[in-house]
Amino acid sequence: MTSPKICYVGVDLGGTSVRALAADSEHKILAVKKARTLRSGGPSRLIHRIAGLVEKTLQEAGVSRANVRAVSVGAPGPIDRVRGVIEEAPNLGWKRVPLRAELRQLLRVPVFVENDVNVGLMGEHALGAGRGSKNVVGIFVGTGIGGALIFDDELYEGSRGGAGEVGHTVLAVNGPLCGCGHRGCAEALASRTAMERDVRAAIKSGRKSNVLKIMNKKNKERMTSSIIVAALKKNDPVMREVMSRAQYYLGVLAANVVNLLDPECVVFGGGIAERMKDDFVGPIRETAYQYLLRRSDPKGVKIVPGQLGDNAGALGAIVLARRRLGV
Amino acid sequence: MTSPKICYVGVDLGGTSVRALAADSEHKILAVKKARTLRSGGPSRLIHRIAGLVEKTLQEAGVSRANVRAVSVGAPGPIDRVRGVIEEAPNLGWKRVPLRAELRQLLRVPVFVENDVNVGLMGEHALGAGRGSKNVVGIFVGTGIGGALIFDDELYEGSRGGAGEVGHTVLAVNGPLCGCGHRGCAEALASRTAMERDVRAAIKSGRKSNVLKIMNKKNKERMTSSIIVAALKKNDPVMREVMSRAQYYLGVLAANVVNLLDPECVVFGGGIAERMKDDFVGPIRETAYQYLLRRSDPKGVKIVPGQLGDNAGALGAIVLARRRLGV
Repeated sequence: MTSPKICYVGVDLGGTSVRALAADSEHKILAVKKARTLRSGGPSRLIHRIAGLVEKTLQEAGVSRANVRAVSVGAPGPIDRVRGVIEEAPNLGWKRVPLRAELRQLLRVPVFVENDVNVGLMGEHALGAGRGSKNVVGIFVGTGIGGALIFDDELYEGSRGGAGEVGHTVLAVNGPLCGCGHRGCAEALASRTAMERDVRAAIKSGRKSNVLKIMNKKNKERMTSSIIVAALKKNDPVMREVMSRAQYYLGVLAANVVNLLDPECVVFGGGIAERMKDDFVGPIRETAYQYLLRRSDPKGVKIVPGQLGDNAGALGAIVLARRRLGV
Repeated sequence: MTSPKICYVGVDLGGTSVRALAADSEHKILAVKKARTLRSGGPSRLIHRIAGLVEKTLQEAGVSRANVRAVSVGAPGPIDRVRGVIEEAPNLGWKRVPLRAELRQLLRVPVFVENDVNVGLMGEHALGAGRGSKNVVGIFVGTGIGGALIFDDELYEGSRGGAGEVGHTVLAVNGPLCGCGHRGCAEALASRTAMERDVRAAIKSGRKSNVLKIMNKKNKERMTSSIIVAALKKNDPVMREVMSRAQYYLGVLAANVVNLLDPECVVFGGGIAERMKDDFVGPIRETAYQYLLRRSDPKGVKIVPGQLGDNAGALGAIVLARRRLGV
């Protein structure tokens, strides 16, 4: 038998899947397990499933519960961090769910809960693309555009925990309508949802494109990142054009944030960045460098895709737990 | 004779005038003196004038040099804080001027030098409109638009000292050309320079306006804040329209910054804000509140004019000096 190893479990709770990751105190990954996110049966059923997934992950890692220092969850939506309550997560159909208390009761270990975008950036900052940078901005492009900020090596959450809403900074007054009710937000210009809207509009207006066919073939109703990647691989002209436009806006967004906050590093995360890496971020970086103030060397700022892929959130949740525990 | 009082001198070094202010350890103002900014004769002549102004201010305050703990200067442009060198100040025609060393030699007291916008916000944070707020954003509207950031009660200057360039965040891709070479920056939409451009264009296109007449009468070549105030008092229709548009963009800018940084307070400073107070900031606040995410109570954020007026920079420089001295 091996000697007992101290272990942390990070959980990334997303709208379609839950991912649990066990790591040791050097953040070495011991095991990763995934399950589908259940929406039927209410919060309690999903929380039981999360607890079960944590157990399976520990089994696979060969770690007993006694050696688990903490379970730490990155979850969507605004969160009451002190009490570990998910205020509202439309993705999960949750409202004021006391995730921390319920998981603690099931697992009987310390549980931490933090916003998924925040833990994603914490992971990249501690272990990935942002390593060695004191001030880092994370921009996560998915169905929406989320963001997170690290100043002086610490997560910055603002005065009411609402900081990082980079997706709702206006880049084009009078631009397209955003889900938030305003016009011209970054999210309305460059999220996956905005790209899908633009692709559908182009096809409706008579442009030739295979995107809808690819969606049909893959049995998808939405233009997911895998659809985007497949269409770009086939050089679909509409997809290429829409992607270029989104990249341009994301470049302006990155420049705005760098001009305001002067970080060492901007990390792009989310499904598209994970799949396309520098094919996605390269053109964004080019536009951003053009828009940066010339004052200091603009190329001194790294603008890069994340390095941790699917594990960023779960690893970041572990980083967070260790900070909170002071170990 | 009164007992010797410990005293600090703050200096606000601007493109048109220099202001020196002596205050005691409770920031009670003991004396304020002003002089014109000399451009002829090079940096050395102006630095001698600053030293002379400090002496006169101390005389008026009835404080001997031995009781001066520090002289602290807010100066334009990027600054090498460690060495107290003004990197570049086009306003003064300065390039790499070792202001700290030269003033220290003349005055033989500790000298500190910091960017003028940063000290302006430090003043408002410690003693004015931002009092009691941990996270504060300053937006200073003048010929350009400058900004400064305070997080967790400390000035945030970014990784290369370049943070706060709120004036060069793009609000309207493809908008008017900015001095920085890009299009649609806040500065190109809502600075005093942008307003003057718009007023002149409206007049050129045949609109009726008294702005140019008022400028002639006051013997001004530029549309200064006093001209703007005079034109608004006379209900000049072009001036009102141009001001409303600038206020709208400043409202969007404030909302962008609040959505990203979630501060307790946004302070508007600069000549127009000082003169017009809430007549300037009121409409900005209204637009900003409309653009804030509904998630938390948007009215929880204060969006207000500065309270220290012309003294913000000099008082803030004193606050900075005391922080640096640890007193």
